[in-house]
Amino acid sequence: MKIKFSNAKILTMNPDSKEIIEGELWVNDSIIEYVGKSKIAGDSFDQEIDVEGNLLMPGFKNAHSHCPMTFARSLADDMSLSEWLNTKIFPLEAKLTPENVCVYTKLAYMEYLTSGITAAFDMYYEPDAIIKASLETGFRTVLCGAINNFKESPEILEEYYQKYNKCSDMISYKLGFHAEYTTDIGIMEKVAQLAEKYQAPVYVHNSETQEEVSTCIQKYGKTPTELFTDLGLYQYGGGAFHGTYLSEQDMELIKDHKVHVVINSASNTKLASGIAPVTKMIEHDLMLGIGTDGASSNNALDMFREMYLTAVLQKAVQKDPAACSADKMLYMATVGSAKAMGLYDCDCIAAGKKADIIMIDLRQPNMQPINNIVNNLVYSGSKQNVKMTMINGKIVYEDGKFYTIDKDKVYEQANKMLRTLLG
Amino acid sequence: MKIKFSNAKILTMNPDSKEIIEGELWVNDSIIEYVGKSKIAGDSFDQEIDVEGNLLMPGFKNAHSHCPMTFARSLADDMSLSEWLNTKIFPLEAKLTPENVCVYTKLAYMEYLTSGITAAFDMYYEPDAIIKASLETGFRTVLCGAINNFKESPEILEEYYQKYNKCSDMISYKLGFHAEYTTDIGIMEKVAQLAEKYQAPVYVHNSETQEEVSTCIQKYGKTPTELFTDLGLYQYGGGAFHGTYLSEQDMELIKDHKVHVVINSASNTKLASGIAPVTKMIEHDLMLGIGTDGASSNNALDMFREMYLTAVLQKAVQKDPAACSADKMLYMATVGSAKAMGLYDCDCIAAGKKADIIMIDLRQPNMQPINNIVNNLVYSGSKQNVKMTMINGKIVYEDGKFYTIDKDKVYEQANKMLRTLLG
Repeated sequence: MKIKFSNAKILTMNPDSKEIIEGELWVNDSIIEYVGKSKIAGDSFDQEIDVEGNLLMPGFKNAHSHCPMTFARSLADDMSLSEWLNTKIFPLEAKLTPENVCVYTKLAYMEYLTSGITAAFDMYYEPDAIIKASLETGFRTVLCGAINNFKESPEILEEYYQKYNKCSDMISYKLGFHAEYTTDIGIMEKVAQLAEKYQAPVYVHNSETQEEVSTCIQKYGKTPTELFTDLGLYQYGGGAFHGTYLSEQDMELIKDHKVHVVINSASNTKLASGIAPVTKMIEHDLMLGIGTDGASSNNALDMFREMYLTAVLQKAVQKDPAACSADKMLYMATVGSAKAMGLYDCDCIAAGKKADIIMIDLRQPNMQPINNIVNNLVYSGSKQNVKMTMINGKIVYEDGKFYTIDKDKVYEQANKMLRTLLG
Repeated sequence: MKIKFSNAKILTMNPDSKEIIEGELWVNDSIIEYVGKSKIAGDSFDQEIDVEGNLLMPGFKNAHSHCPMTFARSLADDMSLSEWLNTKIFPLEAKLTPENVCVYTKLAYMEYLTSGITAAFDMYYEPDAIIKASLETGFRTVLCGAINNFKESPEILEEYYQKYNKCSDMISYKLGFHAEYTTDIGIMEKVAQLAEKYQAPVYVHNSETQEEVSTCIQKYGKTPTELFTDLGLYQYGGGAFHGTYLSEQDMELIKDHKVHVVINSASNTKLASGIAPVTKMIEHDLMLGIGTDGASSNNALDMFREMYLTAVLQKAVQKDPAACSADKMLYMATVGSAKAMGLYDCDCIAAGKKADIIMIDLRQPNMQPINNIVNNLVYSGSKQNVKMTMINGKIVYEDGKFYTIDKDKVYEQANKMLRTLLG
């Protein structure tokens, strides 16, 4: 299948070509074949799409999420974290079946598609159910180990790591565990051995809350970042999800170990966990991505909201309107997140890269007049502007229509399952 | 013209009927005639609309804006307030023609319609151009005096007050001036005389920035709120736009004088002005509304973003996930803002009220599953969910189409005028 997009503005996010290109983009099966000025091609195409002056850009990458948690959207808001977890989330999670996980993951994917997100880094359980949802939808998923004292084990993690890195070009799997405060040191040591054995990065919730950090210091005399580096967990890099309370010393360790930090602004503010020191992280030249976290805490799965919120929170906290530029946010939500997820072929628009592309409708009032397209995307852009989402060369969402999902069936199942869960 | 909406969920925002009604809503010309359970009517209708289980609710009211400032969207972001104002905004504003004002106001109205906003409280100049845009669009506008040392005068304010309160049922006009820091005390005294003469409320920017408050205290030995009340400006109530730095003593004065406070969270965070103490204001039982401010500073005109941001900023600042509930935010963005604008007939859905109504698409992934519709609206809702916007009984926006505006013409004019302005 060969597709030509013509009459397009193209924001490549390629560091080698910063200008917005006016021209064409060709997709051949799953790969971008050409991007540049219009040219008369000897090539023939199966489909030609007139972009009508709208924008093509790389899809957003959601670098931290718990996709199946859409079941808990708006279930329990405006309450304290411990009450929320203990009375609402944990009891329901314990009842989730693989069928539940598959349907609620599909619901998350649908929301991603409406927001121009073409891949997610998902930390949850029941990987077979998530992979089923992913392959049926045509959505790119990077799975992340979530083991802890209560669920799964280092042995299962290794089994998953071997199995799910070979199952499909839409799926990959990263070593990971839930968090220091849910995982004994014996398990963490075994994960570190896996990191060494496979020369692989390790991903984990790190310094999400102040309590997590202070309890870790009480227990080990070290911050979570210090503990993880001392244990060798970050010897081949990896990721720190949230990083709300990383100290400057932590940031130096993070940088030295080539660890990515994934910012989750909406979840952190709504749960009142805090505001990550993104400005400081940028000063330390850390590798940054953006995630939505789960719908249970966020409650939306919307990269426009995350970019916007991350920028304006820093301006407010730093009392500096120049803090966190739009350029930086857009980079984090696309290239930065892709790199955090190991998706080096999906990070930007260039010949040879995977065709994970979105089309942005510039002919909406919130994008007019056109002073600066990047600033429009970050400061006034919205999921309403997403006209098309293409993943791996296939258009899966266009003008409000889902091509691979029966939306009414998913809504019906999601509500029916919820009534059963709530009993 | 008589319209029946059937098969609807109806969130009335009427304090007398808090439950979501499943049933019908009838509109007769500009007025809501019936809201309640389905009934077999002897009545005949010109149009019957099957809402298909989606939600009808009152339109949002934007209680503080500068509509024509869409020209400056994304023109100058990520820079300091003084640099932004002096090098970018003021020089361009000085060049704006009435034709510019009309086109850029229409662009703002289009964005309001996509976000379910059915009325705006607009503080700007060139009222005839704004009213032209309003009447051509069918958009409800409350104009607010904006006089100061540099523009217009108390005499012009009185002339406008008399003239524009009689010109159309879609237009009303409130006494107002720009701010303490741009307006000499002689002018303020004359505005207070007008307040007394017409027994009318007065609206003004109040305590938007810390510098504004401290400079006022240096000059007058009083906060802006103390000054305004001492001058008699608030003797018949009125409004404080922003209120970012209101003290608790100010809040008591505000309450005693029945003054509304209009919160502008996005503008205040993006310009790093600060975060309004909304939680304290709620504790003081103040009358609160929400505004977007202008697109120049916001940069979007999106009430979903404002509600969301206002709530989560309080949760973050108060370190309390229970701060600022979704219920309260939705009330502020609808009834609270309507009352601040004097739109007592447009505040909620009830027989006899103006038919300013929006339809929310619940069959989008961000609104599913349906645990709690109000929480969905505030925490995961988006302008993408706005299926229809009706103002004064007329459908002006539906499924992405503008019925009263030629959108391509507005975009073309807005960009062409911008090139002229930028020279």
